[in-house]
Amino acid sequence: MIGLEMIHAAYGRIQPVIRQTPLLSSPFLDEIAGRKVLIKPECLQHTGSFKFRGAYAALSAMDGATLKRGVIAYSSGNHAQGVALAARMLGGSAVIIMPADAPVSKIENTKALGAEVVLYDRATEDRDAIGATLSEARGLTLVKPFDDPQVIAGQASVGLEIATGCSIAEVEVLVPCGGGGLTSGIALALAEARPNWRVHPVEPEDFDDAARSLISGRREENIRRDGSICDAIITPSVGEITFPIMRTHCAAGIVVSEDEVLRAMAMAFARLKIVIEPGGAVALAAALFHGEALEGDTVIAVASGGNVDADMFARAVAG
Amino acid sequence: MIGLEMIHAAYGRIQPVIRQTPLLSSPFLDEIAGRKVLIKPECLQHTGSFKFRGAYAALSAMDGATLKRGVIAYSSGNHAQGVALAARMLGGSAVIIMPADAPVSKIENTKALGAEVVLYDRATEDRDAIGATLSEARGLTLVKPFDDPQVIAGQASVGLEIATGCSIAEVEVLVPCGGGGLTSGIALALAEARPNWRVHPVEPEDFDDAARSLISGRREENIRRDGSICDAIITPSVGEITFPIMRTHCAAGIVVSEDEVLRAMAMAFARLKIVIEPGGAVALAAALFHGEALEGDTVIAVASGGNVDADMFARAVAG
Repeated sequence: MIGLEMIHAAYGRIQPVIRQTPLLSSPFLDEIAGRKVLIKPECLQHTGSFKFRGAYAALSAMDGATLKRGVIAYSSGNHAQGVALAARMLGGSAVIIMPADAPVSKIENTKALGAEVVLYDRATEDRDAIGATLSEARGLTLVKPFDDPQVIAGQASVGLEIATGCSIAEVEVLVPCGGGGLTSGIALALAEARPNWRVHPVEPEDFDDAARSLISGRREENIRRDGSICDAIITPSVGEITFPIMRTHCAAGIVVSEDEVLRAMAMAFARLKIVIEPGGAVALAAALFHGEALEGDTVIAVASGGNVDADMFARAVAG
Repeated sequence: MIGLEMIHAAYGRIQPVIRQTPLLSSPFLDEIAGRKVLIKPECLQHTGSFKFRGAYAALSAMDGATLKRGVIAYSSGNHAQGVALAARMLGGSAVIIMPADAPVSKIENTKALGAEVVLYDRATEDRDAIGATLSEARGLTLVKPFDDPQVIAGQASVGLEIATGCSIAEVEVLVPCGGGGLTSGIALALAEARPNWRVHPVEPEDFDDAARSLISGRREENIRRDGSICDAIITPSVGEITFPIMRTHCAAGIVVSEDEVLRAMAMAFARLKIVIEPGGAVALAAALFHGEALEGDTVIAVASGGNVDADMFARAVAG
């Protein structure tokens, strides 16, 4: 369904506007991990996460009339900001449906990027019904956060850039995994470019649906739905489109603790001088503290986002 | 004394080993500044600061026997780490003279990068005498932190990369300034590559010797020598070699307050997801809060380093 041609076409559209993030490293991290650790810091991407890649890929594949009528997304976080900025850059408009109790800073940021934010009450209102009514009335096009071929093709650009930046024969690639858009995109790109590499989804404890799904062969669900510091990658399950790709192309999932996540954030602060949010730090945590799950001398950890508030970050770096 | 040829030769030596840092930006910062703001994040450089560029440029210009006998540097901070890593990468050895009351983490980091650290007591011992004795006994070569042509030529690479990354006709370039190695290097590179751009040194209040020197035409000294949060850029005065370059090629200095520095660090955390130390944040502070000192629609601020401890960083981002 999503071929190499589609991935390269998406990259052609987004390359002029995205930030091509470098690969970072530190001898201090190599020593902790016992192998070479390279970090792909998508926290440095526009809007502070990789989500801008997929959003821009999806919106830039739409025709002008569709963009002008507008797009709609459900998100309280990184996807919202990616869609908002992509819509503004492409001359379109975006409606973002957010819970009224979302952090004020996220609502303000999404508005500041030019989106119309529609708030709903989680307890009394039905998000999907509000979105459907709005979409019908105004002809809006839904942009899903991960289960969309163009979004996945856009996230695959992270895999293309990693392959360009590293020619080592055998590498383990670790990817923070929520719905699986980034994981499946990277896995697709690398299956062609680096067939000997292994791509592992990484998740926090108690939210390890991807790891369990790869074992059972079907889409497992998380029992808990909230209460994780890794809010950016908490989803009920991986997607209908993303899971078959992961099942074909991914190695086993790795699960990390919240304490390991906070320590990885502190290491990224001290050694790489980058800000990673908890959900974006799970892959680095796996690289540093779960060497037993890895083979080979080199690991690449994707740091998928950096949208973390000051209190949480201070808690992490204070150790 | 330091010509274009020397600058390009230095870049040829360091380019394969340095991290070519990107130019970052955020619409939120543009709005605060009232103009386009680009940030050159040298905090992402190896060892967490631009100092690695100059150190590697200087050491790679030495012959094998000199490197093998070893180099020596006086530094409690970023220069020490730059020299230590460059020596290790080039197969040489480094002795770093540090005050015994330097932060333990800086001593440990410098040792971990392979350097021999010699501690002295600031109150009772003479640093220069210790260094001279060691140098004579072992044939060590001194690597000065800024007043060295090869070091300046190495720092000039930041200017070359900025010119490559930005083709806008009129730009103000803001550079954190201590001894003036980075400022003079960037000014030299841009005088040739971008003659219409203006390079401003930026300093914290009470340590504005460069700004005063550019006005008076001679090397002014700071009365205060410590007590600034911007420790990385506190020097008694700009250098004997760096000042004539700055006098020829730099526009007026800009002075920022400590409160502005802390706010710039918080903005870099929230909007760019990078960690800047106080001394490395003065240029961004000038870009954001001293628009009255600038002309033109675009400013490039160099974020020169990110080696800040967790307490100070938490203080900055807590606002």
